[in-house]
Amino acid sequence: MAQNKANTADQSKLMEKIVSLAKRRGFIFQSSEIYGGLNGCWDYGPLGVEMLNNVKQQWWRSMTFRENVEGLDASILMHPRVWEASGHVENFTDPMVDCKQCKARYRLDVLFEETSLKKKKEILRELFPGEYDGQVKDEKVVESFEKYVSQDSNIPRIVPMLACPNCGNKGTFTDARKFNLMFKTFVGPVEDSSNVVYLRPETAQGIFVNFLNVQSASRQKIPFGIAQIGKAFRNEINTKNFLFRTREFEQMEMQFFVKPGTDVQHFDYWRSERMQWFVDLGMRKERLQWHQHPKDKLAHYAKDAYDIEYEFPFGWGEIEGVHNRTNFDLSRHEEFSGKTMKYFDEETKEKYTPFVIETSAGASRSFMAFLVDSYREEEAPTAEGGMEVRTVLKLHPSLAPTKIAVFPLVNRDGMPEIARSIEADLRRNFRVFYDDSGAVGRRYRRQDEVGTPYCITVDSETLQNKTVTVRDRDSMQQERIAINRLKEYFALKLL
Amino acid sequence: MAQNKANTADQSKLMEKIVSLAKRRGFIFQSSEIYGGLNGCWDYGPLGVEMLNNVKQQWWRSMTFRENVEGLDASILMHPRVWEASGHVENFTDPMVDCKQCKARYRLDVLFEETSLKKKKEILRELFPGEYDGQVKDEKVVESFEKYVSQDSNIPRIVPMLACPNCGNKGTFTDARKFNLMFKTFVGPVEDSSNVVYLRPETAQGIFVNFLNVQSASRQKIPFGIAQIGKAFRNEINTKNFLFRTREFEQMEMQFFVKPGTDVQHFDYWRSERMQWFVDLGMRKERLQWHQHPKDKLAHYAKDAYDIEYEFPFGWGEIEGVHNRTNFDLSRHEEFSGKTMKYFDEETKEKYTPFVIETSAGASRSFMAFLVDSYREEEAPTAEGGMEVRTVLKLHPSLAPTKIAVFPLVNRDGMPEIARSIEADLRRNFRVFYDDSGAVGRRYRRQDEVGTPYCITVDSETLQNKTVTVRDRDSMQQERIAINRLKEYFALKLL
Repeated sequence: MAQNKANTADQSKLMEKIVSLAKRRGFIFQSSEIYGGLNGCWDYGPLGVEMLNNVKQQWWRSMTFRENVEGLDASILMHPRVWEASGHVENFTDPMVDCKQCKARYRLDVLFEETSLKKKKEILRELFPGEYDGQVKDEKVVESFEKYVSQDSNIPRIVPMLACPNCGNKGTFTDARKFNLMFKTFVGPVEDSSNVVYLRPETAQGIFVNFLNVQSASRQKIPFGIAQIGKAFRNEINTKNFLFRTREFEQMEMQFFVKPGTDVQHFDYWRSERMQWFVDLGMRKERLQWHQHPKDKLAHYAKDAYDIEYEFPFGWGEIEGVHNRTNFDLSRHEEFSGKTMKYFDEETKEKYTPFVIETSAGASRSFMAFLVDSYREEEAPTAEGGMEVRTVLKLHPSLAPTKIAVFPLVNRDGMPEIARSIEADLRRNFRVFYDDSGAVGRRYRRQDEVGTPYCITVDSETLQNKTVTVRDRDSMQQERIAINRLKEYFALKLL
Repeated sequence: MAQNKANTADQSKLMEKIVSLAKRRGFIFQSSEIYGGLNGCWDYGPLGVEMLNNVKQQWWRSMTFRENVEGLDASILMHPRVWEASGHVENFTDPMVDCKQCKARYRLDVLFEETSLKKKKEILRELFPGEYDGQVKDEKVVESFEKYVSQDSNIPRIVPMLACPNCGNKGTFTDARKFNLMFKTFVGPVEDSSNVVYLRPETAQGIFVNFLNVQSASRQKIPFGIAQIGKAFRNEINTKNFLFRTREFEQMEMQFFVKPGTDVQHFDYWRSERMQWFVDLGMRKERLQWHQHPKDKLAHYAKDAYDIEYEFPFGWGEIEGVHNRTNFDLSRHEEFSGKTMKYFDEETKEKYTPFVIETSAGASRSFMAFLVDSYREEEAPTAEGGMEVRTVLKLHPSLAPTKIAVFPLVNRDGMPEIARSIEADLRRNFRVFYDDSGAVGRRYRRQDEVGTPYCITVDSETLQNKTVTVRDRDSMQQERIAINRLKEYFALKLL
């Protein structure tokens, strides 16, 4: 237990360090920080936006460079009927209660979580007389309680037995009400129910309603997919863990339309493709795992669902979901819009509603996972021959916000001029950073800390033979390269 | 007059043709089309999203590849105090009236616009007895009326004299009320005023509130800029002209922070840079013009303001604004947040609030201007020796959604295999489209219509000497290129 606690403390300290680095070096700022921040919203700074764009671009290429995947960019505001058809108006809710005494408000699952073991046992005894008398194992109590409260119909019996964690009174809670997690707003000047629209809680529906538009414009045949990157919004009661649970976030979703009966085969294919994507971009395999949704907890639209989870310092968390959504969404849109959503197969003359395999990655969560995964503290030799700890982001070069840094060793003897001309030349093809302040060792560390894969130094030898040193971030080895070969050298390494 | 009318009809037909092409070929779909659409919102289809991404990427490169411009991606939801400080809560409004009789609702400026000449004269006569008696030129009436109604204090005198265009009753309008154009929503479960947040109506404020965060993380010295691309939302009463006035749109904004006193020089520099950007990307100069805001109509924050206007089929319209925003925004944020927004100059030891030169382009509007500007109908020879009209998007190659199309002349003799291997090879670096259906002439036309700059055809000569024809979209000339030289050929043309 003590061991575990130490680990937890270490892990929470690690998370703090990463958040602090992210702020200091311009990856992530709190939204509206000068006004105390806006809970659940974050801004990407100069290095953050480059890295986020790199993540998105890698995903976009991996999807739309396929002949059978088309791109799309649907609007955030959509017709409100979309969310009736999708089930979000009815089902995208969290149950909540208010304390009538002190007005405190709780999400029911959080309230259940915070209920003490003793109280849980008490409740079970009252509900099931005789069953929990005498010695009952703690695990058994927790398990039974969780099982019992997970069924909606039991809620009205339990809520009155709970005490408010804020004021301590018992039986003061209102009945549980459903709170919809969609942000709503009004189109036009009249704020009544007929003008309500929602900020989309997922990008997927923009793909479904455009299924036949895209298919006919692109002349695709099934199987084919539609890929989209965009913002989505959820009015979370409890935001937490940095970029992990936020109110505004970005998704990278692809819906692959297949013939019913072939869905299992495509599902397996995309599962493997998507896991490989993270691994190819350098994420450590041992920090990745699959989590299959238990059959009795599948979403209303799903036949099968797997999450790709990453092991964050605060525990395993979903960074992507791969779902077999069946024909649920297309059928519902057909029903609600009165427009056909069926595909006509020219060759077999069959008409059917396709099944959908969805790969739904969080751009923000992937960004965070890449950031966390790349963060290392390592022993490294100092210029003076000693050892020090260096902080380094071992980002895949294609994700690194800056690709190359250029340093003149000293600010004289023509070195700055040569360094500037190298910078100008490379800048056309790569994101380059120029730095001429402080000791070179310190300049290396500054670049290590933000994941820059290569640093070029212009030194006195440069003046003699027109070569520079190129230092590799990970090995810290340097090699001498002729200036006129630099472009080719980096094209091979980075493009 | 007749001439003018014919032109207007032609122009409106031209606009219809472009909108229809955009839908049919997958550039732009109406949002939530199967539900009858959502007014003022549009979706970018497979070709549209590629072209939009190209526009954004060209802008991003042109900004952030400069050493003195940093990127940013701030959240759409911001702390509500931001919009009090910026003046949007108070000033970002349109005056509106309701008809008490029939409940019709009008934006006041639209109501004024729709008032007949006769009625305008009548109103002026009543307001200024004697001044508009006898023969008054129509132009004079319009001018006087516009001048008079542009001053808020005159509104209460005029509104009661107007008749409702819907029910025809006079004097039935309510007093004019201010309608705020920001979309509002609520954070958390309680929908009261303390939880109101707005969808940002411009991206600029995300830059201002992060000014010192970005400056200190990037160690920039003034002058420097912050560039951002992102969605913004305005609850327009009247949306119109396709992508021109929409409720959801995307901006590309750059705020350049300068020392007071140097602002005029930087303003001139950025004006010239921004106009050149459109020209460099192939927009016809004669369709571009500057419009300077008259001094008496400048926004509350501006010292000087110029719009870049494009001549759309429906008339000249702003596609970018270049503004000298002075130190208004930073000063207001300092006042409202209580946090300093001042820059400290290490060299001169001066402390000051910088002036801001803003370049604010619409990504959606630029997209539309590029689309409209590139649209041509030209006489072209047919395969049979006759002439036909070809529709072609003469897009700059860097903006074209597809760069290269590959056609096997016939679907046998090994041509499809060779064409597929060329396609696979080029696909690693370029967006390629493969098409093997229909006559080659028709395939060319299909690519012309979506602006693909190059088409490769694999023909019988290919089988003999391993060359293909490469056809140029604009000149329609073909040249024979060796297959193993294609990559190099296109790298020079397209990268």
